[in-house]
Amino acid sequence: MSASLIALDVMGGDDAPRATLAGALAAVSGKGTLRVPPARLLLVGDQPRMEAMLRELGGDPGFQFQHAAQVIEMGESPAQALRAKPDSSIGRCVQAVREKRASAVVGMGNTGACVGAATLGLGTIPGVRRPGIAVTLNLTGQPVTILDMGANIAPKADHLLQYGAMGSVYAQSCLGQARPRVGLLNVGEEKGKGTDLLKEAHELLAASGLEFVGNVEGGDIFRGVCDIVVTDGFTGNVILKLLEQFASFLTAKILGELKKSGVDLTGATLGNLKAVIDYKSYGGALLLGVNGVVIIGHGRSDEKAIANAIGQAVRAADAGVTEHIGRGLAAPSRSS
Amino acid sequence: MSASLIALDVMGGDDAPRATLAGALAAVSGKGTLRVPPARLLLVGDQPRMEAMLRELGGDPGFQFQHAAQVIEMGESPAQALRAKPDSSIGRCVQAVREKRASAVVGMGNTGACVGAATLGLGTIPGVRRPGIAVTLNLTGQPVTILDMGANIAPKADHLLQYGAMGSVYAQSCLGQARPRVGLLNVGEEKGKGTDLLKEAHELLAASGLEFVGNVEGGDIFRGVCDIVVTDGFTGNVILKLLEQFASFLTAKILGELKKSGVDLTGATLGNLKAVIDYKSYGGALLLGVNGVVIIGHGRSDEKAIANAIGQAVRAADAGVTEHIGRGLAAPSRSS
Repeated sequence: MSASLIALDVMGGDDAPRATLAGALAAVSGKGTLRVPPARLLLVGDQPRMEAMLRELGGDPGFQFQHAAQVIEMGESPAQALRAKPDSSIGRCVQAVREKRASAVVGMGNTGACVGAATLGLGTIPGVRRPGIAVTLNLTGQPVTILDMGANIAPKADHLLQYGAMGSVYAQSCLGQARPRVGLLNVGEEKGKGTDLLKEAHELLAASGLEFVGNVEGGDIFRGVCDIVVTDGFTGNVILKLLEQFASFLTAKILGELKKSGVDLTGATLGNLKAVIDYKSYGGALLLGVNGVVIIGHGRSDEKAIANAIGQAVRAADAGVTEHIGRGLAAPSRSS
Repeated sequence: MSASLIALDVMGGDDAPRATLAGALAAVSGKGTLRVPPARLLLVGDQPRMEAMLRELGGDPGFQFQHAAQVIEMGESPAQALRAKPDSSIGRCVQAVREKRASAVVGMGNTGACVGAATLGLGTIPGVRRPGIAVTLNLTGQPVTILDMGANIAPKADHLLQYGAMGSVYAQSCLGQARPRVGLLNVGEEKGKGTDLLKEAHELLAASGLEFVGNVEGGDIFRGVCDIVVTDGFTGNVILKLLEQFASFLTAKILGELKKSGVDLTGATLGNLKAVIDYKSYGGALLLGVNGVVIIGHGRSDEKAIANAIGQAVRAADAGVTEHIGRGLAAPSRSS
C-alpha cells in the first residue's frame, strides 16, 4: 500500500494538460513539498496529447499512463457529465482507486464532478455519513484545517461531529498534530450560541472524546485557538473564497501603497512578501470520508501548486488516512 | 426632524466613558467624517462621571445631557440585563428616540443589549419582518453594504428579500448609490445553487424590482460586482469577524516581512499602509428596520471610530433612512 500509485487527472484544470504535466514533472524533480518517484504517478488522460505535451516539456521521466478519451469541462453539470462521459479522465482516476491499482486521486478540474465521481465510485468509509472537504491553511505557521468547505451545504449535527473526528484523524496522521483541538465555528464563544443545528453539534462534540475547545468565531481562525475548525459547507465555501480573494486584494493594495510612497522593493523582498500570503503551498482540498485519498486542486493551480497537491496525496496515502478514519470513527474517543 | 438629537450611550464600550467622550469631542471638532454641532449630541450616562471626565478632556463645548444610573456590561445576558436595569444608559438612549427627543442612537456597548433595546423599545417599521444589521465596507473605494451581520442567524427567505430592499434604500439615501446592485451570497453563481432557503430568496429577489444581479460568491465582495450583499446573520457575523482579524493579521505579517527584509518605512508610509486596511473610517453597524436610526459601534472603538459613528448617525437621521425604508418596503419595485 505504501508505494501505490497516485492517479493524476491530467485533463482537469484551466491550463490542462500543460499545467498538470508541468506539475507532475515538478513533483518528480523535487520542486514541490515532497520529491515523488515518477513510477508512482499514473497520468490519466488523452494519451497522444499527454505524450506530445511531455515531449514539449522535456521528456517523460518514467511515468505510468492510462488513456481516457473524454474530459469533463469546468462548466458542465457534474451529475449529467458523469453519466454522459463514461471514459472521462476523472472517472478513470477514480476507477483506478476503486480497483486498487492506485490509492489516491489528484484532480484540478470540475470540483463537483470530482466529488461526485469519488463519492459514487469509491463509496464512503463504513460509519461515515457524509464526506466533507477539508482545507488546511498554514498562515500562522501552525496548520489549521477547516471542514466542510462545500461538499455538504446543509449538514446535520452528526455530520458536523464526524467532520471534527475526520479532521482530527487527518491532522494526527498527516500534519503531526498529536491531539488536535477541535473548534465549532459559531457567532459567539458561549455554549448556547448559534442555530439549533450548532447547539446540537456542540453537545455531540463535547461528548465525543475529541479535544473539543467549544465554539470559535470567524477571527479565531488566525488566533491559534484550535487546529480543526468545523463548519457547514456553505459557510466554509464562502470563507474559503473570501480569504483567497481578500489576501490577493489586500496584498495588491499594500504593494500599490508602498510603490506610491516611493518604497522600492527588491525582487527578493517582493518574493518573500508574496510567499507570506501564498495559498499554493497548502496543496489542495482533501475529500475526507470516501474510500481512498482524493485531493481536489484549484482549477487555476500552477505547476508548483500541482506538485504540492501530488505531494500531499502521497503523504495522505502513505499515512493511511482512509484506514485511520475508518478506525477513528469506530472509536472516536480513543482516537488519540 | 433634520436637526434632531443623536443620543450617545456614553457608558458603552471597552474604554467608556473616556473613549466615548473623546469621540464626541472629536466629532464636534471635525475629526470624524462630518463636523457635528455639540448641541446635537445628547450624552446619556452617569452625569457626574461624564462631567468629571469632560473636564479632564478639556471641557464641555455645549453638549446636552441625560442622566442614567445603570450600565449594561459587555458580558451580560441582553434580555436579563434589559429587564434588571430599567435605568440603563442604552435603554435611556432608545427611550429618547421613542419619545421623539432624538432621532438616532449610537452605542458601543453590549451589541445584543443594543439590538434588544432598540427592537423592543422602538418596534419595527411597518412592513418590516425582522431588523437586520448592515455594515458598509469601503475597501475597494466603492462602498459595499453587507447585511445581515448577526441580528437574525436563521432567517426566512422573505427576511432576506427585505434585507436586499432595506440595504438598497440605505445605499440610495446615505451612500449616494442611485440604483444599488443587490447580490445574494451563495456557493456559486448559477441560479440553482445553495440551500432551499437561498433558492427561494433568489426567486423573491429576482421578482422584487430591485436591481438584483443574482448569486455572488465570497470573493465577489472585493470585486465590485454588487453594492449590497444579502446573507443570513450567521454567515455575515462569521465573515465580519474573519475580515477584521485577517486584515490585521495579514498587515502584521507583511510589515514584519518588510522589516526582516530591511525595508525601512517612514512614519508617513506606515500611516498610509495602515489607512489602507483601516476599518475605523466606515463608522459602525446600522440596525435597519427599527423605528429610528441605530448605530452599533465596536466595543474597542477609539475616538476616531466613535466620531465617525456619530457622523454616520447624523447622516442617516438627516437623510430620513427610517422613513425611506417604510416607503420603500411599501413599494419596493418603485424604490429607485
